[in-house]
Amino acid sequence: MGVERGHTSREFERELKSLRERLLAMAGRAERQIERAIEAVIKRNEFFAGQVIADDARIDQDEVEIDELVALILARRQPVASDLRFLMLALKIVTDLERIGDLAVNIAKREKDLSRFDPLPTYDRIELLAEKVRNALRAALDAFVNGDADKAEQVIKGDREIDTLNMHVIADVISMGAEKPQDIIRSLALSSVSRYLERIGDHSTNIAEMVIYFVRGRDVRHKGPAVT
Amino acid sequence: MGVERGHTSREFERELKSLRERLLAMAGRAERQIERAIEAVIKRNEFFAGQVIADDARIDQDEVEIDELVALILARRQPVASDLRFLMLALKIVTDLERIGDLAVNIAKREKDLSRFDPLPTYDRIELLAEKVRNALRAALDAFVNGDADKAEQVIKGDREIDTLNMHVIADVISMGAEKPQDIIRSLALSSVSRYLERIGDHSTNIAEMVIYFVRGRDVRHKGPAVT
Repeated sequence: MGVERGHTSREFERELKSLRERLLAMAGRAERQIERAIEAVIKRNEFFAGQVIADDARIDQDEVEIDELVALILARRQPVASDLRFLMLALKIVTDLERIGDLAVNIAKREKDLSRFDPLPTYDRIELLAEKVRNALRAALDAFVNGDADKAEQVIKGDREIDTLNMHVIADVISMGAEKPQDIIRSLALSSVSRYLERIGDHSTNIAEMVIYFVRGRDVRHKGPAVT
Repeated sequence: MGVERGHTSREFERELKSLRERLLAMAGRAERQIERAIEAVIKRNEFFAGQVIADDARIDQDEVEIDELVALILARRQPVASDLRFLMLALKIVTDLERIGDLAVNIAKREKDLSRFDPLPTYDRIELLAEKVRNALRAALDAFVNGDADKAEQVIKGDREIDTLNMHVIADVISMGAEKPQDIIRSLALSSVSRYLERIGDHSTNIAEMVIYFVRGRDVRHKGPAVT
């Protein structure tokens, strides 16, 4: 019986490992989608934009497959305690990753509006914002994989920087729009891009908060005020 | 054994019913938070705004408690098939509801910026948008409770109206801001309110998509393009 249980346990471990890898692969894809969407906007590259829009289907499929994998493991292994919590966490994280994919598509779709106009000097800051957002996503997933609550806390702290940078970009863009009201489409498109990046940052923060909650087994998701 | 199973099954049914009721109560609270946050903005009521911010803690607690309830049911009943799917769905919906609560707080926080200025004629449309958003949330939860995929589809279709209304409000607000650049804070605050409402609409759409997926057992979450 001991052997039997040891065997089952090893199989179960393998399933959890596979789940972890699937989530990491999905997160990697989401990160590349953000990168390419921003490149499409900055380099005015219609082809990249089209690729991001087309490749979203793969991330959507990831969500469906990972949900199925979790359902399978829950039904087959009937886990309790920390294994159960880990699977619940996976279900929640996969939803955030899929929505990050949607936001990358939203960014890519703004390429069309923006390529009609001269680029604005805010592009450097948009690139910086995108880099911070991608780093936060990677750190949040690292925290998840390693059960690292401290790293997750850094992600949450870093989100303030992302929010501030986004607000500065939008304020600049709007005031430039105010000088030349005919460029309103460009202003709106560029503030949308910045805002989508900020929302991706929020998703990473949400992932980080859930990691802390599930790692420490107590609620730190709602210590501070809501994200503004 | 038949009796024993019948007994367990009735208890399990009671647990699922209780979970459904908890989710509905949470959704009701979220809906009232949206209503009061908009009232705070439109009626320039600082007290309402403060209430919304304070009451968010109750919704945060709902999330924690419902997650715990799902964990308990999963561990105790080890459900499979449609019961398992229902519990997975509950875990995902609770996350959307909690984030809707955060967005209501974000709206309430804009009251301070907006009360410094004369109201804009767009307030009627913001009220209309808020009403549509609350109706969508209610319909999405009805669809969930009744396993009604058709109703869920109506929520998804209705989201286009919400998106369009939001875009019109923002375009108006920005063009008003362009005429009087000194009112830029008001323009930004009001477009934020509109955008938060639109994001609440997106969460209801997400809930509706998940309901269809879990009811029909196949993926209809990713038929169309990403929400823009």
